[in-house]
Amino acid sequence: MLAHAFYLDLCLQCAWKEQLKTLPNPAVAALVLDENGAIVSLESHKECGKPHAEVLALQKAYAALSGDNAILSLKESQAIHSYLLKNAIPIFKDTMLYVTLEPCSSNKKGKTPSCAALLKTLKPKCVIIATQDCDKSAKGGAQELIEAGICVIKAWEVEALQAIHKQANALLLPFRLLQTQGKFMLFKYASRLDGSIDGGQISTHQAQSLMHDYRTKADVLLISGESVRVDNPRLDTRFATLEQRNPNVAILTRQKDFPKSAPLFEIPNRKVEILHSLEQVKALRGFIFCEGGSGLFKALQNSMDLTLVILSPNFKRDSNLTMSLNANFNLLHSEQIADDIFLWLIPKD
Amino acid sequence: MLAHAFYLDLCLQCAWKEQLKTLPNPAVAALVLDENGAIVSLESHKECGKPHAEVLALQKAYAALSGDNAILSLKESQAIHSYLLKNAIPIFKDTMLYVTLEPCSSNKKGKTPSCAALLKTLKPKCVIIATQDCDKSAKGGAQELIEAGICVIKAWEVEALQAIHKQANALLLPFRLLQTQGKFMLFKYASRLDGSIDGGQISTHQAQSLMHDYRTKADVLLISGESVRVDNPRLDTRFATLEQRNPNVAILTRQKDFPKSAPLFEIPNRKVEILHSLEQVKALRGFIFCEGGSGLFKALQNSMDLTLVILSPNFKRDSNLTMSLNANFNLLHSEQIADDIFLWLIPKD
Repeated sequence: MLAHAFYLDLCLQCAWKEQLKTLPNPAVAALVLDENGAIVSLESHKECGKPHAEVLALQKAYAALSGDNAILSLKESQAIHSYLLKNAIPIFKDTMLYVTLEPCSSNKKGKTPSCAALLKTLKPKCVIIATQDCDKSAKGGAQELIEAGICVIKAWEVEALQAIHKQANALLLPFRLLQTQGKFMLFKYASRLDGSIDGGQISTHQAQSLMHDYRTKADVLLISGESVRVDNPRLDTRFATLEQRNPNVAILTRQKDFPKSAPLFEIPNRKVEILHSLEQVKALRGFIFCEGGSGLFKALQNSMDLTLVILSPNFKRDSNLTMSLNANFNLLHSEQIADDIFLWLIPKD
Repeated sequence: MLAHAFYLDLCLQCAWKEQLKTLPNPAVAALVLDENGAIVSLESHKECGKPHAEVLALQKAYAALSGDNAILSLKESQAIHSYLLKNAIPIFKDTMLYVTLEPCSSNKKGKTPSCAALLKTLKPKCVIIATQDCDKSAKGGAQELIEAGICVIKAWEVEALQAIHKQANALLLPFRLLQTQGKFMLFKYASRLDGSIDGGQISTHQAQSLMHDYRTKADVLLISGESVRVDNPRLDTRFATLEQRNPNVAILTRQKDFPKSAPLFEIPNRKVEILHSLEQVKALRGFIFCEGGSGLFKALQNSMDLTLVILSPNFKRDSNLTMSLNANFNLLHSEQIADDIFLWLIPKD
């Protein structure tokens, strides 16, 4: 069997694929090794209200270990919990569960039952956790498992797992900022390899579809008046794979009487705010998804928590619009989506 | 146990980390599952003349399965082969071996003994192969295993493994071009996110060190006269982790009497050619590693087999030099190296 870091890394890579889509929940993934150390499941949490990663991993593992595939048709967290509690108790006793985040405790409030409570009953041999839950109501899951006699390995207490622990915290950045500050600002833009950002649709449809998924989770789409004038956008979520939900829009502009003619104003059940200052931007709450060009990027450079560059491997000589600023970033994560590469950046420390 | 594609993908990700460093050998990785489906080893070929991926994976697996760690001190392929043949015969009978490339046959000539011959004796339960060896002397390994009664799964014959088979072929591009055409041209440049390519050292030291490793494997370093004039480079391999070897240099320039004053001319045991035409470039043989700017990139755009962009997540407003051309690429692979991202591109099909 390989080292804990190997399996936790598989979980982290898996969880990043659901980044932002799980908000306001964290992106989490879990992996089950059977008594012999074979991987029997690797699953990620998909969306708030849907089963947690641990529950999905235990569901798949139960089917693989017991041969009872009836459980696979269950979609609701409560139903999977109940089925596992009724049928699976002896099955997990020699398994190991890897999870990127501390399982939620029995005290937590929410749409789905507690993972710690489930694990306490199923009693896997060992639970390996990449990082702690800091949420007041959900934390304490690890301690509950320990008190139930389950071996718990906390990555933050193990020298060899410090790097993976740090990566697990990086994955949680959007979730934690929302939780602690009530606000998380993401700036997203699409670019080609030569830095050009103009000249028509840059990203693939797959990347666009993922963008629309992110929009469904945004509290506010922030965009500049200039982008509205130039692109005349709808800012809707028609390509989303998640349930469509068109977020409210905030437009940052110096223009006093901003014309309400762009298609974005026609989207039903949408509030559009016109903002005239950075102070107003700073007062926005929730997941603020900024899409824009060089002007907005520079204006918000110091307020941004995370930057997502969707880079297309092309060059377009006639373009000369680029992101014109001085800035250094750390690369938190990268992910290939079709022929684009998603780069998740934080300001360089 | 998860699907074959999952384990082959782990192998491919592992093998890409050694891309180019194994030349003129292919980049290959192998993984062993024990009788219960647990991963016991995942190893890649490191350099021509050193043990093949299968041998390293079997070495690690043998130590894990037998508890006999004496084998781990062996470095030479022949010694590991002999040790395994003497001690390991019953140990592998229920294991599975995943490998990105068909194991080399008994007929092959080379510095290391045949992997197929070794496997025929160790008799794993099943060998799963992502793609075929096309080398005249090395191919036929899969057939040998079949004839020895070993179950062989060839990804190219399995519908569900077509995507991974294609990815395995992509990994082999440099190796196969060298093998079939006697020539492989790579263009490499470093850039920031805004497309800027000027203004001092762009990449991290880790990326630079990997570049120097690639240089040790190059037959010719091709560079433009302009780059020599502007950068006054040494083009050496002082940061290489592999054994230092300073490749020959070819300089493409229109200038008739090119001055031999740059430090690159002072490197011992180096031949420097001055080329005045694209025809002369086309006549170069072996692994041709081109490093340069926009001019050379444009001139060689249609001759290039693979392009490597080393992208640093920074912006530098005062820079205005960029790669100025029209071109569309497919992203073959991406890999984060420290804070840089390596993008491996082929011309869009």
